[in-house]
Amino acid sequence: MCRQILFDNEIFFEGYRAIRQNPDCANLLTEKPALFSMLGEIRGKRILDLGCGYGENCLAFEEMGALAVTGVDISEKMLAVARQENPGKEIRYIHMPMENIRSFRPNEFDVVVSSLAIHYVEDFEALARDIFSLLSPKGIFLFSQEHPLTTAPEKGVRWLQNADGKEEGYVVTDYARPGRRSIHWMIDGVVKYHRTFSDLVNGLCAAGFCIEEMREPLPPKEAFGRIPSLEKEKHKPNFLLIKAQKP
Amino acid sequence: MCRQILFDNEIFFEGYRAIRQNPDCANLLTEKPALFSMLGEIRGKRILDLGCGYGENCLAFEEMGALAVTGVDISEKMLAVARQENPGKEIRYIHMPMENIRSFRPNEFDVVVSSLAIHYVEDFEALARDIFSLLSPKGIFLFSQEHPLTTAPEKGVRWLQNADGKEEGYVVTDYARPGRRSIHWMIDGVVKYHRTFSDLVNGLCAAGFCIEEMREPLPPKEAFGRIPSLEKEKHKPNFLLIKAQKP
Repeated sequence: MCRQILFDNEIFFEGYRAIRQNPDCANLLTEKPALFSMLGEIRGKRILDLGCGYGENCLAFEEMGALAVTGVDISEKMLAVARQENPGKEIRYIHMPMENIRSFRPNEFDVVVSSLAIHYVEDFEALARDIFSLLSPKGIFLFSQEHPLTTAPEKGVRWLQNADGKEEGYVVTDYARPGRRSIHWMIDGVVKYHRTFSDLVNGLCAAGFCIEEMREPLPPKEAFGRIPSLEKEKHKPNFLLIKAQKP
Repeated sequence: MCRQILFDNEIFFEGYRAIRQNPDCANLLTEKPALFSMLGEIRGKRILDLGCGYGENCLAFEEMGALAVTGVDISEKMLAVARQENPGKEIRYIHMPMENIRSFRPNEFDVVVSSLAIHYVEDFEALARDIFSLLSPKGIFLFSQEHPLTTAPEKGVRWLQNADGKEEGYVVTDYARPGRRSIHWMIDGVVKYHRTFSDLVNGLCAAGFCIEEMREPLPPKEAFGRIPSLEKEKHKPNFLLIKAQKP
């Protein structure tokens, strides 16, 4: 199932929305704070948000003083929510698959951000090259995605549990077999692409980027006491974030 | 058990030697070809080999036209083998822990190589800074180490096997808990240090390096048919190699 149909699917759309509205969901607890702490100063900068979804980040970028924010997403349904709930004077939302960003001008952006969308894109090397050409010199590309240990297994995520039901290990399979994964996540046939750490790093290097920082963040300390199920993330984190600079 | 005592230990020394003499051992089959293919032109260059062990790589670097090769190792016993079996006119072997390389001069080397030794060093950030200062501008730091999924588990490597004894998955634990690991490998109490991909990348970036390439190599295709036990490396590779440049 392609991304557009996926995020426009009614069951997936409502399920995804419910997840994202829970303040203890993994992306609000862990991914979003990491992404924003890696972002750096964006005041006066032109931002492109790839896979902007509901547009919460676009609005935050505007509030942080960005000169202009462009959010693109493949799902018209998500953009409808974005335009209604997170509009802004300096924000434009564009319906476009990430594969088409070559339609922007070279040097049109100072920062390209993408939150949890890159793992839906088949050709990361091509995307990295496209982003490189859209960025101004010294421009930043910052993205988060599912952790490569999460995307790896061809048969989906599997934990080993002890007698008390506590996760005592994560079963990695197929890590060195990059490519298409079709898994069940709320609905059948959600398609993602597994890439190793090396695939991602080399894709960025080949495009001309210099890597600045990598993070595999854990939830904040206070959350571990409150939500015991987070303990398993010490075996396998949920997210990977990489920040790279155009020289 | 500290590294020096480890590699000077008689049981470990002989066991390690036997492993490395098998042409189908993982480092000859997989790690060494990857390391040499990432090395680039070394003709006329000054090479430092950290954890040079028996000195096979030092001799290879000399034969490839290196101007000068310095091999350092913490084990006097291994260096004795190196001096006897792999001597060279342009090679000097020095008994020294990696932590002491600050005793070399700034810009003394054009290439720093380390094969399967970095995971024995406690402070990677400090080592990366030291290496950076020893390198000439545009100098290269290339290293291999055990894969982070191998170093992660506090209780050692564990595979899930199916009824036929075939490995169907690797059990990752403690990946997000970097630090000291004491495991059994031929003898008890072999001490290594686990670092995540992020720890390694950020250590290099903080030192000033720009990452050029990362690899998690698999054995050559022909070997899979010949040695069925290699199949499991598609779930979890054995090695990680990173090449970084001083700008």
